[in-house]
Amino acid sequence: MKVYFDNAATSPVAPEVFEEMIPFLRDHFGNPNSQHSHGRENRSAIEKARKLVAQKLGAQTNEIFFTSGGTESDNTAILGAVKAFGLKHIITSPLEHHAVLHTVEHLAKEGLVTLHLLKVDQQGNIDFTHLEELLEAHGAESLVTLMHGNNEIGNLLDLEAVGELAHQYGARFHTDAVQTVGHYPFNLSETKVDFLAASAHKFNGPKGIGILYVAKENKIGPFIHGGGQERGMRGGTENVASIVGMAKALEIAHDRMEADIAHGKSIKSYLKESLEAKLNEVQFNGRSGDLEASLYGVLNVSLPSSKDAGMLLFSLDLKGISASGGSACSSGALTGSHVLTGIKADENRPSVRFSFGRYNTKEEVDYVVEQLLAIL
Amino acid sequence: MKVYFDNAATSPVAPEVFEEMIPFLRDHFGNPNSQHSHGRENRSAIEKARKLVAQKLGAQTNEIFFTSGGTESDNTAILGAVKAFGLKHIITSPLEHHAVLHTVEHLAKEGLVTLHLLKVDQQGNIDFTHLEELLEAHGAESLVTLMHGNNEIGNLLDLEAVGELAHQYGARFHTDAVQTVGHYPFNLSETKVDFLAASAHKFNGPKGIGILYVAKENKIGPFIHGGGQERGMRGGTENVASIVGMAKALEIAHDRMEADIAHGKSIKSYLKESLEAKLNEVQFNGRSGDLEASLYGVLNVSLPSSKDAGMLLFSLDLKGISASGGSACSSGALTGSHVLTGIKADENRPSVRFSFGRYNTKEEVDYVVEQLLAIL
Repeated sequence: MKVYFDNAATSPVAPEVFEEMIPFLRDHFGNPNSQHSHGRENRSAIEKARKLVAQKLGAQTNEIFFTSGGTESDNTAILGAVKAFGLKHIITSPLEHHAVLHTVEHLAKEGLVTLHLLKVDQQGNIDFTHLEELLEAHGAESLVTLMHGNNEIGNLLDLEAVGELAHQYGARFHTDAVQTVGHYPFNLSETKVDFLAASAHKFNGPKGIGILYVAKENKIGPFIHGGGQERGMRGGTENVASIVGMAKALEIAHDRMEADIAHGKSIKSYLKESLEAKLNEVQFNGRSGDLEASLYGVLNVSLPSSKDAGMLLFSLDLKGISASGGSACSSGALTGSHVLTGIKADENRPSVRFSFGRYNTKEEVDYVVEQLLAIL
Repeated sequence: MKVYFDNAATSPVAPEVFEEMIPFLRDHFGNPNSQHSHGRENRSAIEKARKLVAQKLGAQTNEIFFTSGGTESDNTAILGAVKAFGLKHIITSPLEHHAVLHTVEHLAKEGLVTLHLLKVDQQGNIDFTHLEELLEAHGAESLVTLMHGNNEIGNLLDLEAVGELAHQYGARFHTDAVQTVGHYPFNLSETKVDFLAASAHKFNGPKGIGILYVAKENKIGPFIHGGGQERGMRGGTENVASIVGMAKALEIAHDRMEADIAHGKSIKSYLKESLEAKLNEVQFNGRSGDLEASLYGVLNVSLPSSKDAGMLLFSLDLKGISASGGSACSSGALTGSHVLTGIKADENRPSVRFSFGRYNTKEEVDYVVEQLLAIL
């Protein structure tokens, strides 16, 4: 049996998405910036996709930009905001994805900004008092960047509350929503988020394509300079097939969201309960054990100390089970997850992140639990 | 009849390339950074692609990085070199693609570098004496960035000569080779190029994927910060399907290069001769009329003044003919091509760039010439 329980790292392309991409990989090849018929049909496909994405996220069409992925979207938003508004302070947390952490660390190293890392508790909750203190001190000169759903421990952030607070002090708010777009409903026009990043391959779309949302009152410059594509926001010929595929993936995700959420919750609960029933000392990192406070697709399991997580994942892999012990996008780096370090998780207990999607089943959970017990 | 004569803007995906991509869009979806079996099969596909690309370009495997396209490759190389080596001067020409020009203009505006634009003659030839003067003055503190094949007028640069001269004065040399990779043979290990950018969709590969070559003696930092993918050179989950497709496209291009070059030259000569035979005042911009001094896929035709280029392209489009009157990547911007302005082309003569590929035929040339004469 082969079980893929690593959907937070990447997810399979939905068959309907692949079908939607085919004509743009095979037949419609024009450059969308060309005025002739070959170009126009692709321009039209891109703008249709943009309209669809905007609609699903509750945004305006001119607030949606296409990039090569979540990481580029994060880089574009953060650097763009710092430059456009002359920001001097970045307020973030030690639990962010490296797409954000390494970007802000780079800006700090370059002397462009001062970095402020928010205090977090052992559950991974942000210290709101600390956030308000920093906002009081640096207000309009600062960018708050906090992820919506943590890729390792699943913690969900209250975007409303953070956005409200940030704006109260005149700060800008960016969020890496790579784990939540396509998994939760959004209404960005009613949310106090200035910049948001998303990635298609986390919601059953293709790799190498992402979304950058820039609320219309925030005018920032391009990150990749070139031919002025994406209304001057991103140079480079557009990846038409993947843009069309991403829009389709988002459409499907929203059409079946209620069912997918219910399904994800049932899989997660079932795995959690099975583990609790059969393993004495099992714990759950962060708030991942709490169905409402964390991503329904992520359960980060802290196991009784016996062997290291690397060996455990290796043994699971031999049984055909794909899971992760580190960050979604660098599952390779097993040693020293900065998130588990950040919440002061017990170093002697190996942790495994199981992450599920719409194609997983309870039979797979049974198999995984059975194999895990055998290994331990 | 529908004729696509705009291959320098983008080219159709080769059927074999599409076939090669299918399994990676449909079945093999793992994150190449994951250690489990789903991840490993994709890691292996990427590294196989990297080896193939390196081999075809005469480079070492560790000198090849994958990006989202030629524009990102240009941005990465130029910004990376300026930062890593503390460069203060950029020597370029007014005929470069916007992926280079807008990037260096941005760096100059930020006060990071001083920009030096080389003198060019009416044929678009670079003034080598001027280049040497600038290198004498700024040598090791400078980056020379000059494109290999001009996307509008087709002029080919002698990479050997420029690289030799740049290195003689301790300068670094970057080239945008977006129009030549996949169309001409390369042996980068024997060429004095430090950085080179290429884009798959210009050689019958997919859009949204490109190559950055960094000669091993040049260590630069990442442009997109994140999870440390591409050996720390580019954050973001790799676009596996497109990487595999690009490598296949390059392999095919090299396997059939001799035939494709001969075919391209025959189409170009045939179009040129037909136009000369039937149109009194026809001229060719830059060196595009010279088969050896310019891209065999590009003929930039300067027509007797009658109507503007926009109207002409519109009329051709109505006849099913896709061609361009401006830069490849911004064919939309018909008014004021910076390249034609740079070589002081006659403003009163409309110009049309016809660009061909392996799938074009002489019958298509006949149709285009016939329709063009009818319109004029």
